[in-house]
Amino acid sequence: MAAALTMGNLMAQELKMPTLDDLLPGGETYRYAENIYGLQWWGDVLVKPDIDRISTVDLKNGKETVLLTVEQVSDLLKQNGVEMNLPSLQSVQLLWPGETKMLIRTRTDYFVVDWKSGKMVTKQSMPRGAASADFHSESGNLAYTIKNNLYVNGKQLTNEPDGIVVGQSVHRNEFGINKGTFWSPKGNLLAFYRMDESMVTEYPLVDIDARVGELTPVRYPMAGMTSHKVTVGVYNVATGQTLYLDSGDPTDRYFTNISWAPDEKTIWLVELNRDQNHAKLCQYDAQTGKLMGVFYEEENPKYVEPEDPIVFLPWDNTKFIYMSERDGFKHLYLMDTQTKVYPEKRNVAGSTYKESFKTTQLTKGNWLVQDILGFNNAKKEIVFASTEASPLQTNIYKVNVKTGAKTTLNGYEGVHRAQLSASGTYLIDSYSTPTEARKIDVYDTTGKGKDKAINLLTAEDPLKGFVLPQIETGTIKAADGKTDLYYRICKPADFDPNKKYPAIVYVYGGPHAQMIHNGLRYDARGWDLYMANKGYIMFTVDNRGSENRGFEFESSTFRHLGVEESKDQVKGVEFLKSLPYVDATRIGVHGWSFGGHMTTSLMLRYPDIYKVGVAGGPVIDWAFYEVMYGERYMDTPQTNPEGYKETNLRNLAGNLKGHLLMIHDYQDETCVPQHTLSFIKACVDARTYPDLFIYPGHPHNVSGRDRIHLHEKITRYFEDNL
Amino acid sequence: MAAALTMGNLMAQELKMPTLDDLLPGGETYRYAENIYGLQWWGDVLVKPDIDRISTVDLKNGKETVLLTVEQVSDLLKQNGVEMNLPSLQSVQLLWPGETKMLIRTRTDYFVVDWKSGKMVTKQSMPRGAASADFHSESGNLAYTIKNNLYVNGKQLTNEPDGIVVGQSVHRNEFGINKGTFWSPKGNLLAFYRMDESMVTEYPLVDIDARVGELTPVRYPMAGMTSHKVTVGVYNVATGQTLYLDSGDPTDRYFTNISWAPDEKTIWLVELNRDQNHAKLCQYDAQTGKLMGVFYEEENPKYVEPEDPIVFLPWDNTKFIYMSERDGFKHLYLMDTQTKVYPEKRNVAGSTYKESFKTTQLTKGNWLVQDILGFNNAKKEIVFASTEASPLQTNIYKVNVKTGAKTTLNGYEGVHRAQLSASGTYLIDSYSTPTEARKIDVYDTTGKGKDKAINLLTAEDPLKGFVLPQIETGTIKAADGKTDLYYRICKPADFDPNKKYPAIVYVYGGPHAQMIHNGLRYDARGWDLYMANKGYIMFTVDNRGSENRGFEFESSTFRHLGVEESKDQVKGVEFLKSLPYVDATRIGVHGWSFGGHMTTSLMLRYPDIYKVGVAGGPVIDWAFYEVMYGERYMDTPQTNPEGYKETNLRNLAGNLKGHLLMIHDYQDETCVPQHTLSFIKACVDARTYPDLFIYPGHPHNVSGRDRIHLHEKITRYFEDNL
Repeated sequence: MAAALTMGNLMAQELKMPTLDDLLPGGETYRYAENIYGLQWWGDVLVKPDIDRISTVDLKNGKETVLLTVEQVSDLLKQNGVEMNLPSLQSVQLLWPGETKMLIRTRTDYFVVDWKSGKMVTKQSMPRGAASADFHSESGNLAYTIKNNLYVNGKQLTNEPDGIVVGQSVHRNEFGINKGTFWSPKGNLLAFYRMDESMVTEYPLVDIDARVGELTPVRYPMAGMTSHKVTVGVYNVATGQTLYLDSGDPTDRYFTNISWAPDEKTIWLVELNRDQNHAKLCQYDAQTGKLMGVFYEEENPKYVEPEDPIVFLPWDNTKFIYMSERDGFKHLYLMDTQTKVYPEKRNVAGSTYKESFKTTQLTKGNWLVQDILGFNNAKKEIVFASTEASPLQTNIYKVNVKTGAKTTLNGYEGVHRAQLSASGTYLIDSYSTPTEARKIDVYDTTGKGKDKAINLLTAEDPLKGFVLPQIETGTIKAADGKTDLYYRICKPADFDPNKKYPAIVYVYGGPHAQMIHNGLRYDARGWDLYMANKGYIMFTVDNRGSENRGFEFESSTFRHLGVEESKDQVKGVEFLKSLPYVDATRIGVHGWSFGGHMTTSLMLRYPDIYKVGVAGGPVIDWAFYEVMYGERYMDTPQTNPEGYKETNLRNLAGNLKGHLLMIHDYQDETCVPQHTLSFIKACVDARTYPDLFIYPGHPHNVSGRDRIHLHEKITRYFEDNL
Repeated sequence: MAAALTMGNLMAQELKMPTLDDLLPGGETYRYAENIYGLQWWGDVLVKPDIDRISTVDLKNGKETVLLTVEQVSDLLKQNGVEMNLPSLQSVQLLWPGETKMLIRTRTDYFVVDWKSGKMVTKQSMPRGAASADFHSESGNLAYTIKNNLYVNGKQLTNEPDGIVVGQSVHRNEFGINKGTFWSPKGNLLAFYRMDESMVTEYPLVDIDARVGELTPVRYPMAGMTSHKVTVGVYNVATGQTLYLDSGDPTDRYFTNISWAPDEKTIWLVELNRDQNHAKLCQYDAQTGKLMGVFYEEENPKYVEPEDPIVFLPWDNTKFIYMSERDGFKHLYLMDTQTKVYPEKRNVAGSTYKESFKTTQLTKGNWLVQDILGFNNAKKEIVFASTEASPLQTNIYKVNVKTGAKTTLNGYEGVHRAQLSASGTYLIDSYSTPTEARKIDVYDTTGKGKDKAINLLTAEDPLKGFVLPQIETGTIKAADGKTDLYYRICKPADFDPNKKYPAIVYVYGGPHAQMIHNGLRYDARGWDLYMANKGYIMFTVDNRGSENRGFEFESSTFRHLGVEESKDQVKGVEFLKSLPYVDATRIGVHGWSFGGHMTTSLMLRYPDIYKVGVAGGPVIDWAFYEVMYGERYMDTPQTNPEGYKETNLRNLAGNLKGHLLMIHDYQDETCVPQHTLSFIKACVDARTYPDLFIYPGHPHNVSGRDRIHLHEKITRYFEDNL
C-alpha cells in the first residue's frame, strides 16, 4: 500500500493533472486528436489537401506528390477575376473523377476551376445570410434558403409567409432527415420539403440579452397536439416550374427518406402515419406529382422507424437496397423492381410487412447494419458498416449482391469510419481504439487489403502527459435477468482497492445513443476523467432502450420511457455496490437531456440509492416533448394516459430526498425550459428542495467556453454534497 | 454560564420552538394578532360590526348596544328581493352620519338599505370580473372597470383597444397614486385616468403552468425608454359627456395627486416633468378642461416627489393644505386661494419654489408629517400622523390652523393608526409597541383624552408560548460619520455572551421603506426570530436612503443607488464585529427586491466581509427597472451613464467569492426576471458561481403557502454554507 502511494506520488510528479480546460471541448487548452482534414477520393486517386498545397498519395507506398499549391490556386482564381485570401486548401474538393476541376467554397461562393485550362467552369454565389446550401457538382446548380424561402441559382422559388418553411429539414430531424433539398442525379430537378407549421403552438423562449427581454418563439408541436404539415415539391431548373407531389392531405403524416430514381423520372419516399407504426414505400412521378404505387409496407404494434432512403444499385437501375429493422435488427434488403410479387402480408419478429417486389435479404443476424458506404461496381459488392464484430464497434464489411458472400474489411477492434473510392476498390479507414486516438489507413477492399494498408496518420493521444484514470468495460445483466448490458468504469489513477470511493453514474439511457464504444478510452468523457482523478469511481451502463442492440432491446421501453431504463441503471448500482472499493452510501448520478430525465427519475424513484444528482436539460413530462420523437416511444397523452402519468416526474416530486441540481438552458428549443420550471413548481408544491441553475443564451446543452463553467458547477455540486 | 444554560433548558421545556409555519404569513399555523374588523365611525357614533351583529359602543363606558343582528339584515335584504347568505357583518359600512342606512357589499353588488324604513335605497351591480370599483356614497354612483375600459352605473364610458387602460392606477403606483377614478365631492362628476401604453415595450413573461408555456407580456417602460402617456378625463353623470383635461402633450410627464375643489367646478392636480425635478400644482376647469393656472411650483436639483393630493379645509373652501418636502422634511402648508401673491422664486434647503397663494407653514421640524387624518371643524384643527416623537414611530397630533398650536394626542411609544370621527372629536387609536401586539383605544381629541381612553382590545401576542429571541435596538453612525442609523439585533433566547455566533443581516435599504419601528418586536420578521432561535445573531440597520428620515437622508443615494447604502451596511457589520459574541468570519446577508440588490451589491463590493448571501427578486441593472421609480433616483442611462455603470451589478459579477443564492419569481412584473438571469449570464461569462432558484407562478416576492418553502430554502442555504 505504501508502494502504491509512492507510485502515485511518482506519477503525479511525472504527469500533469488535467484541468477541465484540458479535458473538455470549449476549454482553452483542449486539443482534439490530430486529423487529416479534407482527405478525399478523386475517383480512385487519394487526395490530401493541406493548408498550403493539395497532394495526391500513392496507394502503394504513401508517397505524396504535390498537385497544386495555394499560390497556384490563388493565381487561378485571380486569373478569373476573384481576388481572395485563401487561408487553407483543406476545404477544396475534387469532385470530378478524371477531370482537373476543383470546388473552392467560401461562405457565400462556389467556384469550380479547371486547373489545367485555367478556366472558371462554374461560379455560383448566394447572399450573406443564406443557409442550407446544396450544390450539385454535375449540373453546377446551387440551391439555398433565405429565412423561410427557397432559392435556386439566385432565383426565389417560393414566397411563403412566416410559419411556412421551405427547403429546410422537417419533422425536427427525426426519421434520418437532416436537410430539405434533394437534387436529382443529374441535377436537373430539385425535390424539396415545404413545411406548414403556422398551426403549431409557439413556445415562448425569451432572450434576456436584449435591451428589454425579447420573445424568440419557436413552433413546437407537443405530444398529442396539432403538428405541422409537410409536402414535397419538385422544381425543374430548365422550365422554372414547381409542382408538389400529389400525396393527399398531409395532416398527421411523415414524409421521409426522399430519394431519386436514377433516371430522374420518379421520386421514392417513405410515408409514415402519425402513430408511426405503418410505413409505406411510395413512388411518385416527378413530372406529374402522381403516386405511382406503394411497393412496400411495414407495420409494427410498437413503431416502425424508417431512417434510410433507398439506394439503387449503380450497375442495375432496376434494383435498390431497402434497410429495415423488421426482423429485429436493421439489415439490407435487395428489391427487384422488375419482379413484381403479390403483396402478401407476412409476419416476422412481431412486424408485419407486404412486399410488391421480389426481395432478397442480404444481411442477417443479431447485429445491425449502420450505413451503406458505397459499391464496388465491378465486383457487384455493397460496402457497409455494421456492429457484427461487437455492439461497441463499427466495422466495415462488404457483401456480394450475387453470391451473398460477406467479407470483413477490418473486423478487429475499434470504431471505424470509412470513405470508399469511386470504384469501390479502396477505402480510407479512420478509426480509434480504446488505446488509440485516431489512425487513418488506406487499403483495398479485397478483404485482405488491411494487411498491406498504408498508414497516413497515427495521432498521439491528446491527453498524453496527463494523469488519467484506469478504465475498464464489461457486462452485467439487465433488470430482465437475461440481457447483457455494457458498462464502463473509471478508477482513479492511484486506485487503491482497499479504500472506499464515492461513485458517480453518468447516464444517457435514451434511444439513438450509446455511451460506450471501443473508441478511445471506451468513450469516457473528459468530465469522467476529471472526476476519477478527483477520487470518484465513474460508472456508465448502456441500459435497454439505447442504441445498436436491435429493436427488442430498444423498444422494451415503449409507452413508459424511463421506467425500464431506470431499473437497468439500478442493476448498475447493484454491481457498483458489489465492488469492495465503492462506498455504497455515496452514489451520485448525472446526465443531460434524456440523461437528465433519467437522473431525475432515478433520484425520485430510488431516493435511498442515489444521494446526489445533477440533471441537465431534462425531459420532465413527455407531454412537453415534441410529437415526432415523443409519440414514437410514448404514443400520445390521449392514447397512453397511464404511461404519461407514470413517466411525468412532476408526479414524483414529493419523493425527493437527496440533493438534486436541475440545470436548464434558457434557449433550449429541444427540451423547452417548461420541463424544469414546471418540475421546480411541483417540488415547491410538494415542499421538496431541488436546486436549480439556468444557462441563458444556450440552446440544448452548454457548449463552447461555458462548458467549462457548467462542469465546474456540476463538480462543485458533487464535491459539496456527495 | 451554567445558570444561563439551565435557564435556557428550562425555557425550552416550558416554551414551544416555533416553526416557519408558526412564524410566517402563509404558514398553516400562523396567526395574526387579534383585531376588530370593521370598527368605524357613524358620524361621531362608534360602530363595531361583528360576524352576527352590529353594535354601537358607548364612548363613556365602552358598553355595546346591538344595533342590528345578521338575521335582521338578511331579512331586510330579503324584503327587498335579495336572497343571500350573509357570512358576516364585518364589512357592513354605515357611511351616512345620522341616517339609518348601511352599505352591504358583495363581490359584485352594492346594496344601501335603510333599516328603519326597511327600503332598499340604492342597488348597484357590476358584472363578474369587474374591478377597480369606486362607489360614491352620497350620489350612489358606481364606477368600475372591465379589462381596460371604464364603466359608470352599467354604462360603458370608453371603448379603448388593448394598450390603452382607463380608470385604473397609472404611473406604476408611484407619486402616491393607487387608483384611477376620483368622484367629485357630491358624486356628479368622475375624474379618471387614461393611460396609453401602446408604445411601451412589452416584457415577455411566460406562464409555464399552461399546456404549452404561454406568453403573458407586461408593458414595462424601462429607464430611459419610451414611456406611457397619461391624460385625465372627466365624466359628467348627468349629461353622459366625457371631456379630457386640456393639458397639452402628455409625453414624458406625470399627472399626479388628483383632487376636486369642494364646489366640483375645478380639478387640482400636480404635474411633474419626466426628470421629476419640477412639480406644478395646476387647476383645471372641470367643465371646459382648460388650465386655469399653475399656482405652486417646486424644483429640486435631485427630485421632487409629490405624493399627497391637496386637501381643502372643510370649514373654508378657499384654503387647502399642500404637503411638501421642500424644507427637507414633509410638512403641512396652508394655501389661501383668496390671497394671491407674486410668485417669487425662493430657495430653501436646496429646493426652489414659487407660490401664487399666500402660504403658511403649519408644521416644521426635523421630522415629517405622514398623513392627514381629518379635521375638527369646530376647533379649526387638523389631525395628522407624524414621526415627531421618533423616526421609528407614528404618533397622532393636531395643529390649530388659526393659532398654529400643535398638541400630541398620543405622543408615547408605539406605531399608531387612527380613525377620526366625523366631527374630529374622537379617534380610534389602533397601535402596537415593542411588547404589545395590538391595542385599540377610543378617546377624544382634546389632547388629554388618552388618559380616559376606553380600551376596546388588548390583543395577546400571537407568538405567546413560543421560544423567542432577545431583541434590542440602538443607533450607529452612518458611513458619513455623522448620521444616526437605527439598528435592530435579535439574539438567541438562550444567548450566551461567551459564545461566538454567526450573524445574518437582513436588509432592504431602499427608499419608501423602513425595517425598524417601535411596533411589536421592533418589526423583527418571523424569519429573524426563526434564525435567532437556530443560533444566529439577526441584524438589520436602516441605511441612508430609507424612509422617514427626511429628504437629505433619502436622497444621499441619488444617481448611484446602492453604493452609499452599501457603505452604511458595512458600518452595521463593523458594529456587529465589535460585539464579542459575533463570529466575524461568518457574516451572511439576505434581502428581497431593493434588498436583493443590496445583498448582491454587498456580496460583490465587499467579498471579504460577507460569506453567504441570499438575494431575492433583486434589481441588478437599474436600466432594467421602470421609468417612474428608477429615473427619480437614477436619472436615465443616457444622462447618468457613470451611475448606471457603477450600479450595474453585472459589471461586478467577477468579484463573487462567497456563496450567493439568487432567487427570482418567474411572474415578477415589478423587477422582471431579466435582472437575475442576466446576472447569472454575467457570472458564467466571468466564471463565478452563484446559485439560483426560481419560483414559477409568483409575482414579486413569494406569498401564501409557498412562503414557507421559500424560507426553508433560504434557511438551508445559510445552514449549509455559513
